[in-house]
This record gives sequence, C-alpha cells and structure tokens, in this order.
Amino acid sequence: MAQIPILILAAAATACIIASTPFTAGGADSEGSPIFGVKIPPGYRDWRLISVAHEEGNLNDLRAILGNDVAIEASREGRLPYPDGTIIARLAWSYDPLEESSKAFGRLQSFVAGPPKNGVQFMVKDSGKYASTGGWGFAQFNDGKPADEAAHNTCFPCHATVKARDFVFNRYAP
Amino acid sequence: MAQIPILILAAAATACIIASTPFTAGGADSEGSPIFGVKIPPGYRDWRLISVAHEEGNLNDLRAILGNDVAIEASREGRLPYPDGTIIARLAWSYDPLEESSKAFGRLQSFVAGPPKNGVQFMVKDSGKYASTGGWGFAQFNDGKPADEAAHNTCFPCHATVKARDFVFNRYAP
Repeated sequence: MAQIPILILAAAATACIIASTPFTAGGADSEGSPIFGVKIPPGYRDWRLISVAHEEGNLNDLRAILGNDVAIEASREGRLPYPDGTIIARLAWSYDPLEESSKAFGRLQSFVAGPPKNGVQFMVKDSGKYASTGGWGFAQFNDGKPADEAAHNTCFPCHATVKARDFVFNRYAP
Repeated sequence: MAQIPILILAAAATACIIASTPFTAGGADSEGSPIFGVKIPPGYRDWRLISVAHEEGNLNDLRAILGNDVAIEASREGRLPYPDGTIIARLAWSYDPLEESSKAFGRLQSFVAGPPKNGVQFMVKDSGKYASTGGWGFAQFNDGKPADEAAHNTCFPCHATVKARDFVFNRYAP
C-alpha cells in the first residue's frame, strides 16, 4: 500500500502528511532530512517549471513541480533514468476559490494558489549515495525544518510504484 | 458581465474560449494578436513561476502563470502597477487524473497536467502603447496562431474587474 505524498502522489492520512504553517525558505544552511541528509537547495523557487497538479482529499492543495537545470533537460526530453545531479522540487499551496471569479460568474470557477501548504519536498538523484532507494534521496521540509524519520521512511516505498519511470510520478508539461 | 479567460479568470462559454489541439510553441516569428499585435515571446516556457490554478467548468484545466524577469520581480514584491516591460504568460493543460494514484488509493486523489489545452495567453505591459486598455496588451494563441479579434475584444472588459490590482488576477505564490 503506497503511503507517501512525496511529489504528486499522496496519501490522505499518513505519517508523511504534516499540516504546516506557511513555509519559509530555508536555504543552504537548512538542516538535512533524516535518512537522506538532503538540504533545501538554495534558489529552488527560481527553478523552471516541470508540471502542475491538484491533490484532493486531506491534502487539498495546488502544487508545482520545479526542476534544476539537469532535471528540466532530462524531463523535457523524457530521458530515463534521470542523471545524477537531478533535483526535483514539489511546492504546494492552499487550494483557494478566487473570489473575483466567483463573483463574476455566480459560481465557483477558478481555484488559485493561496498560502503555502503541506511543506516543500525534494528528490535528489545520486545513484551512488542513494543506491538502496533507487538512486534518489528524499526530503520534506515544513516551515524550513525537515519532517521526521518516520515520514521519510515512507517516501521510497510509494515512489517504487513508478519504478518504470525512475521513481518519478510527474511528467514534463509542454 | 465578465467574459474573458485571459489569465486565470475564465468564462465557461464565451467567444474567447477556443478548444485547441495541443499548442506548439511559436517563437519570435509568430503572427501578432489582433488589436494588440502581441507576439509569442521567445523562450517563455523557461520563465519562472508566478502561480498555479485550476479552472472548472468548460475550461477544466490546470494552468501555470509564468513571468519574465520584470514580471517576477514585480509580482514577488507585490508592486503595483507592474512596470513597462512586464510580460505574464498563462499556460494550461488538460486536467487529468493520475492513474497510478487512483490505483494506489482506490479513489481519485491526484490530478495532473495532461496535453496542452485552451491555448496560451500573454499580457504585455506598455503603458504608452496600450493606454486605452489599462496599459496592457493581450494575446491568446491556439496552436501557435492568434485567436480572432472578437476573442481579443473580450480580454480587457473582464480584466477590468481587477483594476485595483492593475488588471492582473494572479498573485505571486511564495
């Protein structure tokens, strides 16, 4: 049974889902994630867009998948496996109706990103360092602080459901 | 009555909504939009992310708002009005359930971006050139070709509903 919300696929009621107050970017000095030691990559909010998603259920968010240059090139070309150096970031925000839109149309029409929600997550490809987890290191940060070890233990088993896509759920949105 | 889906706010059944086959990037040589003469800005898919949204109703898409450097700096700082040179891009894709997620959880959980849908739209700030439309030029391209004049006539009246935000519906998602 898949249980981890790391990058798009998400369980509605697992240890990995930690309701968080709005995320504040951590930066290079952030603490590393348990198990994997992944830190918040500086400048990730400026990375280019891979794709977007909406999670229903308890997560109830709008999310964006960003990638560093290595990730963008690989995902754009659909190249698998992702090369070492790939970093994929998952940002998420509250799923909020747009008031102006509802007023204009007399019904719910537009949902937009509100405050940050459900933390920020990263996948880092290092086929040597993370050989036991498909070459990927995982991290979730809530308010700039890493989630606990139990949460990080759930990442890889869930991503294993998309082993055929090198453990990555998202696809590049052209 | 607002009628234009340019950038997030969207009417479900207006002339401006043109179902399109997947969009192919046009580039600098693209034809300009009617009325405004806005061309597809080269490289816009590599621009940084402003925000994300989901449109219900007939539009039924997932969308991303990207901005050139001028747009990103202004929106990040919440600075109004946007300076001349601002270009905001609205991309959209089919709103597709993620098969792997549905299988894992036994219900719909994740919706992800599928093929491009509903064209691509731009707002270009030039307070002199576009003085009669709040300083903004508008454009919608379907498959790299500009939508017709009737469609473009509907852009500004709808955006006028957010005149207090310099005619821009989206806000920067931190």
